[in-house]
Amino acid sequence: MCPKVHADIEMPMARTGDSTKTDGDSGKHVRKFAQKVERCPGLVWQKMWKLGREDPRRVIHSLKVGISLTVVSLLYLIEPLFLGIGDNAIWAVMTVVLVLEFTVGATLCKGLNRGFGTLLAGSLAFLMEYIADESGPIFRAIFIGAAVFLIGAAATYTRFFPFIKKNYDYGVVIFLLTFNLITVSSYRVENVLKIAHQRLYTIAIGCCICLIMTLLIFPNWSGQDLHNSTVSKLERLAKSIDACVKEYFNENNIEITEHESSEDPIYEGYKAVLDSKSTDETLALHASWEPRHSRYRHKFPSQQYLKLGAVLRHFCYTVVALHGCLQTEIQAPQSVRALFKDPCIRLAGEVAKVLMELADSIRKRCHCSPEILSDHLQEALKDLNTAITSQPRLFFGSNINQDSNMLALAAAAHASQEHQKDSRVSSSSVKTDASTLLEWKSRRVSEQSKEAKRKLLSRLSSKIAITSLEFSEALPFAAFASLIVEIVAKLDQIIVEVEELGRKACFEEYKHGDQIVVTSERPLIVVAQNNIPSHGAE
Amino acid sequence: MCPKVHADIEMPMARTGDSTKTDGDSGKHVRKFAQKVERCPGLVWQKMWKLGREDPRRVIHSLKVGISLTVVSLLYLIEPLFLGIGDNAIWAVMTVVLVLEFTVGATLCKGLNRGFGTLLAGSLAFLMEYIADESGPIFRAIFIGAAVFLIGAAATYTRFFPFIKKNYDYGVVIFLLTFNLITVSSYRVENVLKIAHQRLYTIAIGCCICLIMTLLIFPNWSGQDLHNSTVSKLERLAKSIDACVKEYFNENNIEITEHESSEDPIYEGYKAVLDSKSTDETLALHASWEPRHSRYRHKFPSQQYLKLGAVLRHFCYTVVALHGCLQTEIQAPQSVRALFKDPCIRLAGEVAKVLMELADSIRKRCHCSPEILSDHLQEALKDLNTAITSQPRLFFGSNINQDSNMLALAAAAHASQEHQKDSRVSSSSVKTDASTLLEWKSRRVSEQSKEAKRKLLSRLSSKIAITSLEFSEALPFAAFASLIVEIVAKLDQIIVEVEELGRKACFEEYKHGDQIVVTSERPLIVVAQNNIPSHGAE
Repeated sequence: MCPKVHADIEMPMARTGDSTKTDGDSGKHVRKFAQKVERCPGLVWQKMWKLGREDPRRVIHSLKVGISLTVVSLLYLIEPLFLGIGDNAIWAVMTVVLVLEFTVGATLCKGLNRGFGTLLAGSLAFLMEYIADESGPIFRAIFIGAAVFLIGAAATYTRFFPFIKKNYDYGVVIFLLTFNLITVSSYRVENVLKIAHQRLYTIAIGCCICLIMTLLIFPNWSGQDLHNSTVSKLERLAKSIDACVKEYFNENNIEITEHESSEDPIYEGYKAVLDSKSTDETLALHASWEPRHSRYRHKFPSQQYLKLGAVLRHFCYTVVALHGCLQTEIQAPQSVRALFKDPCIRLAGEVAKVLMELADSIRKRCHCSPEILSDHLQEALKDLNTAITSQPRLFFGSNINQDSNMLALAAAAHASQEHQKDSRVSSSSVKTDASTLLEWKSRRVSEQSKEAKRKLLSRLSSKIAITSLEFSEALPFAAFASLIVEIVAKLDQIIVEVEELGRKACFEEYKHGDQIVVTSERPLIVVAQNNIPSHGAE
Repeated sequence: MCPKVHADIEMPMARTGDSTKTDGDSGKHVRKFAQKVERCPGLVWQKMWKLGREDPRRVIHSLKVGISLTVVSLLYLIEPLFLGIGDNAIWAVMTVVLVLEFTVGATLCKGLNRGFGTLLAGSLAFLMEYIADESGPIFRAIFIGAAVFLIGAAATYTRFFPFIKKNYDYGVVIFLLTFNLITVSSYRVENVLKIAHQRLYTIAIGCCICLIMTLLIFPNWSGQDLHNSTVSKLERLAKSIDACVKEYFNENNIEITEHESSEDPIYEGYKAVLDSKSTDETLALHASWEPRHSRYRHKFPSQQYLKLGAVLRHFCYTVVALHGCLQTEIQAPQSVRALFKDPCIRLAGEVAKVLMELADSIRKRCHCSPEILSDHLQEALKDLNTAITSQPRLFFGSNINQDSNMLALAAAAHASQEHQKDSRVSSSSVKTDASTLLEWKSRRVSEQSKEAKRKLLSRLSSKIAITSLEFSEALPFAAFASLIVEIVAKLDQIIVEVEELGRKACFEEYKHGDQIVVTSERPLIVVAQNNIPSHGAE
């Protein structure tokens, strides 16, 4: 930000034409700024291109809005049409701008809200008009003022009800708007009935244009988007789990990935699931306004999709905890991990396979194979069981008091690494018990400023958590294994919800022939890639 | 829903007055329906009352909207004002309805967007007008049509840019609306300049009224809401952790709480944190539009609040995993838990205390005490360490092969309980290894329908996960302890972010005197309870 502002300030100086000594600097800035400006259109174009490539429906939607606006403008531009409707055609233009949304559900939701809001407000305004009709102008002004205040306050208050906020917020706003427009203008205009009538049918024209554009020309269905995002979430979770376990047993890059959590594929995988709540709810809300549109002829079970989404998010929290095992500073030694590498990777692979299978079944709208959900998974579980019980001495061995055992050595090595990083510490002790650390802490604390002291203390508290707990040599892998087992247990809930979804959405029966070998290299289905033309002819 | 529809259908029948035999039934329905209708106003009133009690600012906001609407209606109702402004006063009414929002930030965001959108659209429309001025009506119509199409499509496309969507969506809509209104009406109306001018200044009047109402009369600050919700999140997390650990070691109600996850206080505590992302982002966005308003005279660090919110959510995922330890079917035996009850509860209490202390420091806008963040916590950690290392034989004991050991017995008892629940199983075997279960499964499977089979299979897969893993006797408590240690480690990040917040928001220095003993009985601060009147005079 800073250099740009600087360039702006120096621009006028450069323009004056004085070639003083400082002009070289400012000239540089100007050139830099000019270069930036030159590159700007290219950058904007690139971004626009990327946006369109990501989801070509965006381009189509923009064109649809342009066409709708042109069509509605014709009401004004073509003489006979204008004579029929008149100045109020402007309401039709407003309606098109405000109501035409990206998906069918959103457009219907807004259009119907706008329609009913206007209708209700019109009726109420007429009632008011009827009551105040006979009275004098001063009483009428007071009456209108009072009505505007009361209805305004009441309507605003209803917007705080969560149910109304969620479903009818726009309707209430339009109700309030129309009511005010009609009531207030009724004071000056004789024929209020005509105003209301015109407003209502120009809005109807606008809504009709919107509905035609959104329903008949390349419609985008919220339900379809929700469906696709659910499939994508299952696939992302599968990849996350697979990648997470593989990385846990990868011997090279554990230290590197610790600080890149915002960029690594594991995080990218489950991030979308964690953040899906509000998007899903909006899509489900809009989907509930959509008519039965697909060739499947069933009511779209948006609530079941939401339920599945909630279960997936809960599943995801366990995946986050599993990922936490990679990032935490309490790490099981490589030698221990190597022993359980194969069964763990296999188990994670099976979990991923089940998730992929579920995603596939949802994508194809057919029930999933009953076998794949248990056989391989339980074999993999048994393998892990065997692997761990075959190493009882290593895993459960009560060799805490032996200083020379492998685990303690690994811990000591880790601790000494930590000490080397902190170059201020001269002591090269590799003792890891709490008392030594406390001693060290009290020595250090007196030399620090207050600010640094606070930091050091909090760091120390976590360092103690890590190094003082000798028993924790057994913990890291136990926690990791326990979380994997927990993930397997939670898979059950996902299966139940997917089956329920299959029932509610009338999925086809599973056929034995078409089982697909799920490879992890298959590209993710993005919400953008759904098959719009298939609905185009309906 | 069903009985209600029924009552509706039968209503006309009852009204006809025929007292046939079926009328007794329908009469009942009518009475029921009438009772429902009678109770309805009471219920609505109760809900409204509750809504107002929860957050009295809602009532105030509703009254503010009512007053603003009445004031803006005066432009129409009072003769001299109306003569000055004329019919276009209607735009002022529209502006008030659409712009006046609950918080200052939201109102400013909408108002400025509306203002700039109108201004930009007006300028562009004039340019168009200037170009098309000299030409004939047909060329003009085509030119206007083309301009409407192009600008409409382009403006809609820009709304897909996340940055514009987030900050200027309303502005783009208003730009499009105004541009179309001016361009289209310019075809029929001579003096477009006058239209645009009037629209602009009536909108300005509307915006002014909104700003006065929102800024000067009981203003609600998004920044303050964000601040309060952050405090509340910290307190809720503290209570959740405390309750979670206490429930883990509670000997009575483990079975009961397994199925009530949606109602228990632990879930209620962290649910708000998990779901906070979109609310926080909206509040932060609006807060960034707000002027520096408080007596603290600093720029509101909304980004830092968001960062702290993200860290809290990540912390929360570990709490969810900890809560998962309570709900999972893989449970450590009570006897094992009892041994570690006190140190675990103490450690959780210390974590909760630190969180409460942080919440308190944010609420009071002063830095937190440096001591409380480490001393007690590390003592509690040491205690847990001592407790576990003092029981090496129990915890690490390699007595897997002894059938009579306490852990195996507890597991067997648990398994037999499971068997008794499933009354169809005649075998009273308490063996818990996988082979028995597999045998049992294959026996059962043949007797079931396909649907039930699928369910059983998936249930079994998780049952195997639970009972076949003999090694898992060591896992449950290890996982629980490991997660607590992980929570302590993550506490570090929260402390760092709160300290960063303290720096950016210029919190006061910590004073030694005012340390408060944090009790867990203190009521939560709800966002609703912030002190509005303190800003009232500014």
